[in-house]
Amino acid sequence: MAPNNADKKETFTFAARASVEQVEEGSDLAPKFDADGLMPCVTTDAATGHVLMLGYMNSDALELTIETGEAHYWSRSRACLWHKGATSGLFQRVVEMRVDDDQDALWLRVQVDGSGASCHVGYRSCFYRSVPLGHTDRIGLQLKFEEVTKLFDPTDVYEGLPNPTRL
Amino acid sequence: MAPNNADKKETFTFAARASVEQVEEGSDLAPKFDADGLMPCVTTDAATGHVLMLGYMNSDALELTIETGEAHYWSRSRACLWHKGATSGLFQRVVEMRVDDDQDALWLRVQVDGSGASCHVGYRSCFYRSVPLGHTDRIGLQLKFEEVTKLFDPTDVYEGLPNPTRL
Repeated sequence: MAPNNADKKETFTFAARASVEQVEEGSDLAPKFDADGLMPCVTTDAATGHVLMLGYMNSDALELTIETGEAHYWSRSRACLWHKGATSGLFQRVVEMRVDDDQDALWLRVQVDGSGASCHVGYRSCFYRSVPLGHTDRIGLQLKFEEVTKLFDPTDVYEGLPNPTRL
Repeated sequence: MAPNNADKKETFTFAARASVEQVEEGSDLAPKFDADGLMPCVTTDAATGHVLMLGYMNSDALELTIETGEAHYWSRSRACLWHKGATSGLFQRVVEMRVDDDQDALWLRVQVDGSGASCHVGYRSCFYRSVPLGHTDRIGLQLKFEEVTKLFDPTDVYEGLPNPTRL
């Protein structure tokens, strides 16, 4: 870890979770990370409200996002801190950050640099396919592409890097 | 499990995850549940794009949501299938369901019945507080209430039921 991160850790401590009332009705940021030290983060386009991605933050990613106003996550597939856009240039500028009632989930409203894409496949949103409703079994259930044009070519941007999708 | 659920399980099987290309670029619904059998689901207001909640679905909840067009989740705190609105009457009607690139997260766009609230604390959204940006330590960092009026009184609606928030 870089020395500046080590320095930062000495001063940036989140509030301890003391009571349900404090967590739900108070003004302390008292986040709850899961057994892996992570919490999920929904990221939406600040202009359209479309969900761009669902990422995960550890405490370092949360601190860095608060400090810098640029989205940082924990990459589960690469097991490293992830400054979104560091490879692609598609940084996410945080317009607003919110936390949920029990403080185990985050919501970022962002503006994305460059092409505006947030998905490693090349689409604007990771949620580029819809699931049809009303089916009572899998017969005929086919995902529908709601985005049809990739905003960048992932084979160029991520040349030589492994695909993060795990089966 | 109710007999009709047992019947349903015989026919509703999701696609097996065979390749990254199938999962990312295909039309099969091949969801990936975590070690607890769950996947996160972002739920937004179909009209405003505001994030209402972040819930979790197991395979039964996903099947029932697809079949009925009403949001079903798995309640982690109560450890049971959860037809959202069954207690409060605040059912979530699914306008659109989407799945993300690696199919380990869902996005529901919904219309909420009644008062329109989705948060057990009484607010419209579970994300009723914002986190200020630009802080380099916790001094002075205070959450700000972005919703100030509860849409219902949780002590009435959930009378006698335990609060789901865990410390």
